Amino acid sequence: MRATVIHAPGDIRVEDVPEPTIIAPTDAIIRTVVTCVCGSDLWAYRGLEPVGQPHPMGHEYVGIVEEVGSDVTSVRPGQFVIGSFATSDNTCPNCLAGYQSNCVHREFMSTCQAEYIRIPNAQGTLVATDEHPADELLPSLLTLSDVMGTGWYAAKAAEVRPGSTAVVVGDGAVGLSGVIAAKELGAERIIAMSRHADRQKLALEFGATDLVTERGEEGVAHVRELTGGVGADSVLECVGTQESMRQALHSTRPGGNVGFVGVPHDVAIDGQELFFSHVGLRGGPAPVRAYLPDLIQRVFDGRINPGKVFDLTLPLEQVAEGYKAMDERRAIKTLLTP
Amino acid sequence: MRATVIHAPGDIRVEDVPEPTIIAPTDAIIRTVVTCVCGSDLWAYRGLEPVGQPHPMGHEYVGIVEEVGSDVTSVRPGQFVIGSFATSDNTCPNCLAGYQSNCVHREFMSTCQAEYIRIPNAQGTLVATDEHPADELLPSLLTLSDVMGTGWYAAKAAEVRPGSTAVVVGDGAVGLSGVIAAKELGAERIIAMSRHADRQKLALEFGATDLVTERGEEGVAHVRELTGGVGADSVLECVGTQESMRQALHSTRPGGNVGFVGVPHDVAIDGQELFFSHVGLRGGPAPVRAYLPDLIQRVFDGRINPGKVFDLTLPLEQVAEGYKAMDERRAIKTLLTP
Repeated sequence: MRATVIHAPGDIRVEDVPEPTIIAPTDAIIRTVVTCVCGSDLWAYRGLEPVGQPHPMGHEYVGIVEEVGSDVTSVRPGQFVIGSFATSDNTCPNCLAGYQSNCVHREFMSTCQAEYIRIPNAQGTLVATDEHPADELLPSLLTLSDVMGTGWYAAKAAEVRPGSTAVVVGDGAVGLSGVIAAKELGAERIIAMSRHADRQKLALEFGATDLVTERGEEGVAHVRELTGGVGADSVLECVGTQESMRQALHSTRPGGNVGFVGVPHDVAIDGQELFFSHVGLRGGPAPVRAYLPDLIQRVFDGRINPGKVFDLTLPLEQVAEGYKAMDERRAIKTLLTP
Repeated sequence: MRATVIHAPGDIRVEDVPEPTIIAPTDAIIRTVVTCVCGSDLWAYRGLEPVGQPHPMGHEYVGIVEEVGSDVTSVRPGQFVIGSFATSDNTCPNCLAGYQSNCVHREFMSTCQAEYIRIPNAQGTLVATDEHPADELLPSLLTLSDVMGTGWYAAKAAEVRPGSTAVVVGDGAVGLSGVIAAKELGAERIIAMSRHADRQKLALEFGATDLVTERGEEGVAHVRELTGGVGADSVLECVGTQESMRQALHSTRPGGNVGFVGVPHDVAIDGQELFFSHVGLRGGPAPVRAYLPDLIQRVFDGRINPGKVFDLTLPLEQVAEGYKAMDERRAIKTLLTP
């Protein structure tokens, strides 16, 4: 089959590799319907994370079940399924506590930009839709396997509540999904921090009520000005740098919450500063699995349309251009069709 | 009047100083009934915080109102009052959000180991009891101005809920108060980390169900063993060092919460480690004012008896010995009678 392999920073190729097969009785094999490139894939692409040996890429997927292992009874061949970028048995204590992305059997998906995918822990990871979705729903359903679920978790971790004020730091696909989540969870005011016209437009379409274009302490000052001087109730940190974390913490009111979902790269939090801020902080890989049934329904109902974050669609064969366009900020997010 | 002054690390004296007077119309003057030495006073005493110029000490107090400024109508001369170590107007947005210890007019008390005390923001800071309390209630009421309220906040910030498992890191007066708070908030299992026999005894008396004597990763391993391998729902960090913070974070289950109330000294939190732990973190100076009415009632009802943390009572004139005994761990907490 054809699959994406990274060889070095900037060197993304599509190659012939063996089709995956069932290894464990808890596996399933799916035929990829659509997959995509994630902002987090760019860390390796940009050389900010070591590449090491050439290896497959991709962790977002929807597909049709081809085959299941003998332990898998919750999905069957022919069904359309969505799963999380982090697999889970959905029965361990961490799963039962709602943190499936910290399952004791967790495996991070990493081979999804390909024609076929092996899904470990398939029983607890995959959710089948009642019917095969129409083509126009595919982009939105695909976002549920990561970015939309991650934006949702950012809003939950930041404790967005009806009537509250939310700030979203980061205008990538996750940040934009965070705007959707904040709106769905009832935030009255949603301040999107963005300085790219195309992303600002989408943020407003998704429910942002205010835009802040400044960064750093200037951005913080603008947020404070918009929030009666005290800061926001909830801040969604969707980047993962020291600067974005600082911006998020400083934009939050005492007693407010930061939900951080950008994988932190060289981020340190000063204990005394956090202490005196009274800000609550929770982050992590999103427990996407927990949200799938609800979010699938919202997509089928037409309530949310996170698929709009895809502004570039390419055949899998052109995946390299998909990475390049995102790296150069010509695209927010690239959808790939195998 | 007689008042405590620190001159240098280890050099605590009682001296004649002018009696305080009303400076602002929002002030009150109280006559100290009892006051005490706090674990946090030891940072300066031990030379771990700069002393600078000789200055008064003490931030915990109960007393009788002597005089009030013209803006103060909520308390009147002759009443028995308790107030927080952090003053608050109780009307600003942060106060209304329940974070009175982040009041925009906050002043930290610092002159309370003395015969008379000036209380800024008296209207929002002081709470009068319905009647003058019996002498045997004084120690417990005194703890409400800081350590018991701080333990309460630690438990709230760590989101202790009925049926949950709580760990308390630190066996000082705050940690022991945290045990009381965890029990009152319904924790089913309360693991106290302590290796001092007298404190272990008090922890058990206050409601601890388990004791862990190991520290660091050994202590963490023991907590995990006691919690089915996953860690505790709630961890109260009542020390403020890098090691205690690490111990707290590692003892918490994914999705659990750490409430940290030990003022952090050189504590840095690694963003990526916090991210992958899924642990929620909130700290700060406790909004003691928010809890006073409820906690006063619990003391009058005999439901809680946090005054037991005082195992040494001295006249104010012997305050130096009070510090020394705590520094040498001969006393958990010293009560002072002016």
